[in-house]
Amino acid sequence: MFSVFPVGDLPEFHGGDDLPSILADRLAQGDPGLAPGDILVVTQKIVSKSEGRMVALSSVNISDGARDLARQTHKDPALVEMVLRESSDVVRAVPNVLITRHRLGHVMANAGIDASNLGTCGEEKVLLLPEDPDASAARIADACHARTGIRPGVIISDSFGRPWRIGTTNVAIGVAGPPAVIDERGKPDRDGRIMQVTQIAFADAAAGAAGLAMGEGPEGLPACVLRGLPWQHGDQTSRNLLRPAGEDLFR
Amino acid sequence: MFSVFPVGDLPEFHGGDDLPSILADRLAQGDPGLAPGDILVVTQKIVSKSEGRMVALSSVNISDGARDLARQTHKDPALVEMVLRESSDVVRAVPNVLITRHRLGHVMANAGIDASNLGTCGEEKVLLLPEDPDASAARIADACHARTGIRPGVIISDSFGRPWRIGTTNVAIGVAGPPAVIDERGKPDRDGRIMQVTQIAFADAAAGAAGLAMGEGPEGLPACVLRGLPWQHGDQTSRNLLRPAGEDLFR
Repeated sequence: MFSVFPVGDLPEFHGGDDLPSILADRLAQGDPGLAPGDILVVTQKIVSKSEGRMVALSSVNISDGARDLARQTHKDPALVEMVLRESSDVVRAVPNVLITRHRLGHVMANAGIDASNLGTCGEEKVLLLPEDPDASAARIADACHARTGIRPGVIISDSFGRPWRIGTTNVAIGVAGPPAVIDERGKPDRDGRIMQVTQIAFADAAAGAAGLAMGEGPEGLPACVLRGLPWQHGDQTSRNLLRPAGEDLFR
Repeated sequence: MFSVFPVGDLPEFHGGDDLPSILADRLAQGDPGLAPGDILVVTQKIVSKSEGRMVALSSVNISDGARDLARQTHKDPALVEMVLRESSDVVRAVPNVLITRHRLGHVMANAGIDASNLGTCGEEKVLLLPEDPDASAARIADACHARTGIRPGVIISDSFGRPWRIGTTNVAIGVAGPPAVIDERGKPDRDGRIMQVTQIAFADAAAGAAGLAMGEGPEGLPACVLRGLPWQHGDQTSRNLLRPAGEDLFR
């Protein structure tokens, strides 16, 4: 049994805000507070905002490659330029679709660049992923530990589309503490057979569960606590969730 | 805030067992019981077992096409034959990997055919997906309503791999009651901008959250209740989660 509690009463975040301390202070006040074994899930959006990852599209110098790709995908050339700068390679580019491998390793639409919920007035700005979401997660865990004496697991979540299924689910792009993947290979199943292939994407499932509680749109909440899940602190990061490009089995 | 409660004390299931009545009786006893708004998530495995979807591989007549594909994928020819019978087309076939589009529309490994946790003694048997998991979900909802006066949402879950990410998460292959996809397109975000692309895979996220509580392996639990999520009864099914083959954007 586990429960998911939203962390309410958080402010709007801006570049330079000390998100780890703000979250730690908020959790030190209780409701939901922090208990041993808690996992704190934080959306990418407030991590990126507080880390100053906002870019004004009017300030972007656009390369010829980005202009070509923008024509191909019917997207804003400055946005495409930023997508390319954030990516190691383009996976798919057709009208209205631009899938790349982000330099962090995630295959995702538009390199995770977000143009909604940005609180801009007038000028068009976009929000990049955090520079290093695993490090962001670790800083939040450290701040909570320093403030409360309890070190939560921390997951930074983002909403991803899926190739063959409609709709987004939240996955983990930053992990500090909990397992990213639980490897059950070689363990016996209910009948004593050895399981061959079972690896469970624990951090992605935790991010997805948090997404149900956080929602999107005007009522969306940017952080929540998962309480009651069994897990052990370890040193996995979001990189454990990345299938090596050479094992890209579905393409 | 929501909570996920495992449904304990369920028996081993066999072909002909009345799973809907057994679940309804179990929930009528309380702990976790049923409350209005509950979503009951049930693993594909016990639905398939109770619906008699077990096949002895020794009884399968193997086609030439299956033999070729078995050589290509290094898989059991009888298993490959069953995968082909369950599928509308092959998406990817390389050594140790066979991805197909199941006749239900899901793109998945081995057409969802499972050879673990089957309780067989000696003879090799495999378990197919339910014939119509949406109908299975509806029968469970009906039985719970008849027994308790409360109609839960019901989701049949199965664990799926992902193309670019390690590990499986649970998704919904049967839906009765809750939304499969919540469409936020056209609604304002926090800053009053109109959201362009947000469709949330609610039933997949709910199945994923349940998966965290249910686990795999010897301690795995086959059903749980999600309590506290806001949703309205509707008529979506798992088909709402399927991206039409022509919109297969990631290939």
